[in-house]
Amino acid sequence: MTIEFSFTGADIYALAEELFPIHRSITGNGVRRTHDIIRKVIPGLVSHEIPSGTKCFDWTLPDEWNATEAYIADMDGRRVLDIQDNNLHLANYSVAVDDVVTRAGLETHLRSLPDMPDAIPYVTTYFDRTWIFCLTERQKQTLTDDRYRVVVKSTLAPGALTYGELLIPGRLKDEILIHTYTCHPAMGNNETSGMAVTAYLARAIEDMPDRRYSYRIVYAPETIGAVAYISRNLEALRRSVIAGFVMTCVGDDRAWSLLPARRAGCLTERAARYALEKILGVPYTAYSYLDRGSDERQYCAPGINLPVVSIMRSKYGAYPEYHTSLDDMSVLSPAGLWGGFIATYRAIEIIERNETLVTTVLCEPWLSPRGLRMPLKDGKTLDNFSRTVSHLVGYSDGTIDLLALAELTGLPFHDLVLVADSLKDQGLLKPVGETPSPDQLTS
Amino acid sequence: MTIEFSFTGADIYALAEELFPIHRSITGNGVRRTHDIIRKVIPGLVSHEIPSGTKCFDWTLPDEWNATEAYIADMDGRRVLDIQDNNLHLANYSVAVDDVVTRAGLETHLRSLPDMPDAIPYVTTYFDRTWIFCLTERQKQTLTDDRYRVVVKSTLAPGALTYGELLIPGRLKDEILIHTYTCHPAMGNNETSGMAVTAYLARAIEDMPDRRYSYRIVYAPETIGAVAYISRNLEALRRSVIAGFVMTCVGDDRAWSLLPARRAGCLTERAARYALEKILGVPYTAYSYLDRGSDERQYCAPGINLPVVSIMRSKYGAYPEYHTSLDDMSVLSPAGLWGGFIATYRAIEIIERNETLVTTVLCEPWLSPRGLRMPLKDGKTLDNFSRTVSHLVGYSDGTIDLLALAELTGLPFHDLVLVADSLKDQGLLKPVGETPSPDQLTS
Amino acid sequence: MTIEFSFTGADIYALAEELFPIHRSITGNGVRRTHDIIRKVIPGLVSHEIPSGTKCFDWTLPDEWNATEAYIADMDGRRVLDIQDNNLHLANYSVAVDDVVTRAGLETHLRSLPDMPDAIPYVTTYFDRTWIFCLTERQKQTLTDDRYRVVVKSTLAPGALTYGELLIPGRLKDEILIHTYTCHPAMGNNETSGMAVTAYLARAIEDMPDRRYSYRIVYAPETIGAVAYISRNLEALRRSVIAGFVMTCVGDDRAWSLLPARRAGCLTERAARYALEKILGVPYTAYSYLDRGSDERQYCAPGINLPVVSIMRSKYGAYPEYHTSLDDMSVLSPAGLWGGFIATYRAIEIIERNETLVTTVLCEPWLSPRGLRMPLKDGKTLDNFSRTVSHLVGYSDGTIDLLALAELTGLPFHDLVLVADSLKDQGLLKPVGETPSPDQLTS
Repeated sequence: MTIEFSFTGADIYALAEELFPIHRSITGNGVRRTHDIIRKVIPGLVSHEIPSGTKCFDWTLPDEWNATEAYIADMDGRRVLDIQDNNLHLANYSVAVDDVVTRAGLETHLRSLPDMPDAIPYVTTYFDRTWIFCLTERQKQTLTDDRYRVVVKSTLAPGALTYGELLIPGRLKDEILIHTYTCHPAMGNNETSGMAVTAYLARAIEDMPDRRYSYRIVYAPETIGAVAYISRNLEALRRSVIAGFVMTCVGDDRAWSLLPARRAGCLTERAARYALEKILGVPYTAYSYLDRGSDERQYCAPGINLPVVSIMRSKYGAYPEYHTSLDDMSVLSPAGLWGGFIATYRAIEIIERNETLVTTVLCEPWLSPRGLRMPLKDGKTLDNFSRTVSHLVGYSDGTIDLLALAELTGLPFHDLVLVADSLKDQGLLKPVGETPSPDQLTS
Repeated sequence: MTIEFSFTGADIYALAEELFPIHRSITGNGVRRTHDIIRKVIPGLVSHEIPSGTKCFDWTLPDEWNATEAYIADMDGRRVLDIQDNNLHLANYSVAVDDVVTRAGLETHLRSLPDMPDAIPYVTTYFDRTWIFCLTERQKQTLTDDRYRVVVKSTLAPGALTYGELLIPGRLKDEILIHTYTCHPAMGNNETSGMAVTAYLARAIEDMPDRRYSYRIVYAPETIGAVAYISRNLEALRRSVIAGFVMTCVGDDRAWSLLPARRAGCLTERAARYALEKILGVPYTAYSYLDRGSDERQYCAPGINLPVVSIMRSKYGAYPEYHTSLDDMSVLSPAGLWGGFIATYRAIEIIERNETLVTTVLCEPWLSPRGLRMPLKDGKTLDNFSRTVSHLVGYSDGTIDLLALAELTGLPFHDLVLVADSLKDQGLLKPVGETPSPDQLTS
Repeated sequence: MTIEFSFTGADIYALAEELFPIHRSITGNGVRRTHDIIRKVIPGLVSHEIPSGTKCFDWTLPDEWNATEAYIADMDGRRVLDIQDNNLHLANYSVAVDDVVTRAGLETHLRSLPDMPDAIPYVTTYFDRTWIFCLTERQKQTLTDDRYRVVVKSTLAPGALTYGELLIPGRLKDEILIHTYTCHPAMGNNETSGMAVTAYLARAIEDMPDRRYSYRIVYAPETIGAVAYISRNLEALRRSVIAGFVMTCVGDDRAWSLLPARRAGCLTERAARYALEKILGVPYTAYSYLDRGSDERQYCAPGINLPVVSIMRSKYGAYPEYHTSLDDMSVLSPAGLWGGFIATYRAIEIIERNETLVTTVLCEPWLSPRGLRMPLKDGKTLDNFSRTVSHLVGYSDGTIDLLALAELTGLPFHDLVLVADSLKDQGLLKPVGETPSPDQLTS
């Protein structure tokens, strides 16, 4: 597997830098601008809008929120806190205000983190119709005047929820889903990284020669966006998705993490584990589905139950800068982002090449005259090639896939794939099951 | 779960004191008197009599045995051993005798325990038509005369085997069986404790508000009584029993023990384990069904195979006083008996409240506007309530019951029950399966 | 189990000694002479011949090869290497030659083991049409002349592949397969031992009173012979074989080894493990099917999938003399061969006696009047007999066989068999399933 990629970690980092400062929420123009930037890498990404008020399963889409200006000024008009400096300063879905308030009154609208005096917390107020400013504890200590003017210029009005979708066809209609989310404002690992890595992952998939599977790339706001997306695409998802990944927290270079799907041991999980353990050879924290926290909650929900996992670097909630302004571009690195990309890409390669084979002849085939069996080394031991052949013909009874055979035998998965290809060419192995019918193939 | 009980361990102990001295065997008036005493606590207990000679599966009920007097006297007429002092002195089913015997002749009819010189052994002679006196080794050493008079006034004649039954209806016809045995003479942990605890357990069940299940309380002699009971109630047991407990050795305060049903992992076993581990939080010895020894042998037999377990204090065979006169009221304590009661009661509460739920909406429901999702604590962590909601809606796919969810998540079972009730009230979860049909409900 | 055998390890050793020097290959007169010798022990062995060129599944049987003379002589005519000294000197399937060659030319036709200077390697040249002499490194060092005469008088011509078969009928048509291979020239543990032990194993089976199963004894060349045998007997094997053993490496006294069938946990494997662990009580190396190397590769192949295992002493590839002239008669011993015999025989005894029983009465049967229940020892503990009875009637629900019950309870398998026989005689247990129909019985 020595595919050359047309980009590097530095390219992913550059995209992340461009995406980082956009002021995003679960609706609004920040999401649209985000899509525009992503289209520089994957021009085929289509933006879809679902009107506010649309019922999506149990949910009703909220009005669209946009904020153009927000600041706190002293009575001399000097802005002491301004969303232009950091878009975390204003809690998403804060209502408009233009008022003079006492310091005591102001304090009920301020959020800071006394234990992290230099961090602005990430706060939303989707359901409380109020306004909230977030700031560092140090900034808060400087607000000693008796009165301040607060200005929030925001609108909350019928509009739309915006999501992006890119379908990349393969030979089969069966799909691999790749989902990331677009609702977080200026934070790096969670979640500029997912948007940036997903864009380049999609590009790498577009560049992948002879794709077996089709790919469904989704950019949507977290939770409500995933719910909305699933509600609009339920039958297609149920019919087609054979594996899936939620791309989140894929940007720093400090850790590796795996969050499995609800149903243990699905193909996506097995491929992800193999990619981390055997292809990348990195240590990782194997989380439980109990530790879930992102959009696998929707894709793996009862009644949906898709095989969707997350391969992460430092997992949400498990690194100190999480959900604060300290999760900035300095947390990301080209190496971290590349790792986030390559781990999922390697898992996808495994899924692409994995198959369940069955022998076409009874007993062992006659290997020697076909050049499939070398003489014993030192009269005792099979060489690796012969051992690979032996295990392929000795185990391929239509119940074990190549990935499981790699796990069982310790033989490298990609060696098994290459030798299996040769045995298929010689007519000694064939995929189990029927040849795909025309309606299983893309046109 | 803060139900107040109308009785205490002292009440159970007082009942045990009254039951202890009755001379019981597998048949006879001792059993009838035992039922009369138990009816002071559960007046609804009905005594049933099955005639001697009745065929019960492979067994034939024996003639009824009653003993009114039994003693050994010296030739001066002084009674040196008398059943009035301890009813263990006469082996159950000893035949009548009135004879003068030599010391050597007497000795073949004596049983003592040289290694426990102060203990009278518990002996029966159901199949040998003979008479046997049991005594302490010290007593035996005092029998130095050449000749003694032995008198046993007993009758063995067609009569009946007596068992007691109390049916406590719940909403469903599905039943929880509670069985104890009435054939042991004056011994405490094995088996006055089972009779006393079962009476108060039945009373607590009668006091239980809104019982889901019906309850079948059975008092019968061990083994043959259980066989007889099952033979008379086979179809009802097979149709109705969803859980069951054999109440035995539930009176001392030295240990906790669990004997599972033959089929590993049944609901009764899971509930019993959870009650001991998580509700009571006590260490216990987890026995294997290989260690069985009481009436689970009948209820779990091939072809019967009911999910019947025993939660015990010190298990039969596993404490030094077992099957001797040393297993007397001093072995029992109010605390020990209360423990025996409360452990099974807690397991029953779990079974009463356990159910398998399924979500009614696809994806996660919209929790926040329903007050089912609190903001993240410190921006990172779900509070316990929100976590409970999350796991209920995230896992309830109709294949996992609340008890298994408690085991999986570590969340307290009763918290899951309370939150599940709330989610059911809001229409977000429903029990899996059909609503019980009229013929599954008690009238 | 105190069956007396009509032979000893010394008899097996004597047979091995007679078989050892025969010059065998996958075809030819050496195999036929081998059969003649084996018939001294099992006269019923029938030799079958399959013509060269016959298609057997994926294979085509090669021409028959026979060598009558082979040597290297110096230019004075003195033979410096002669197949008469050791038939490993000529690689099987070497073509005929009579030529004078330079020392350099000769060397390309020589095989030795520099790391084992006193060992002649075992080499074959089935597919290369050439001639090869094998010799010790020390012998090779003495070949310092400039030129040598090489003579191989061999024929490669249409003939046959020879295999031997002995069918020993039992009550049922269900069969236990015992397979060994006949293609190895003068080597001891691999593979004179398998041929010698199999002969006496067949004799012991013929002597076994009231065999339940029929037995299929097969002598065939390794790999191609097994393929050929299976191709000719596929339907019978599929219909009848309930257990099987490949007899290989059963002659030294240094180790015990078990190679399981491909499908884990089959009856043969369980019986073999029990025989080694509990009957023989010996430590052994539990190999994986990944370590396979003999004819289980054919019998356990996908689509064949028979429950065939190997109980070995020192496994092929796992002892220093393997596949060299050092694996000679000194590696074998009467004790080693007897161990190889008795381990498989014990496993067969287990399979013969194993069955799945079901109780005929509900609840426990009435044991005491039948003499099936002894009084408690010291008032507390069941004696072994009563415990065996109790577990047989307590667990026999038609889903657990006696071997599994032995493993579960720790009770000796043969005790369970004896007591089960008694319980069957009393009508309390019966084999699960239908009585064999006439067409399942041998005539």
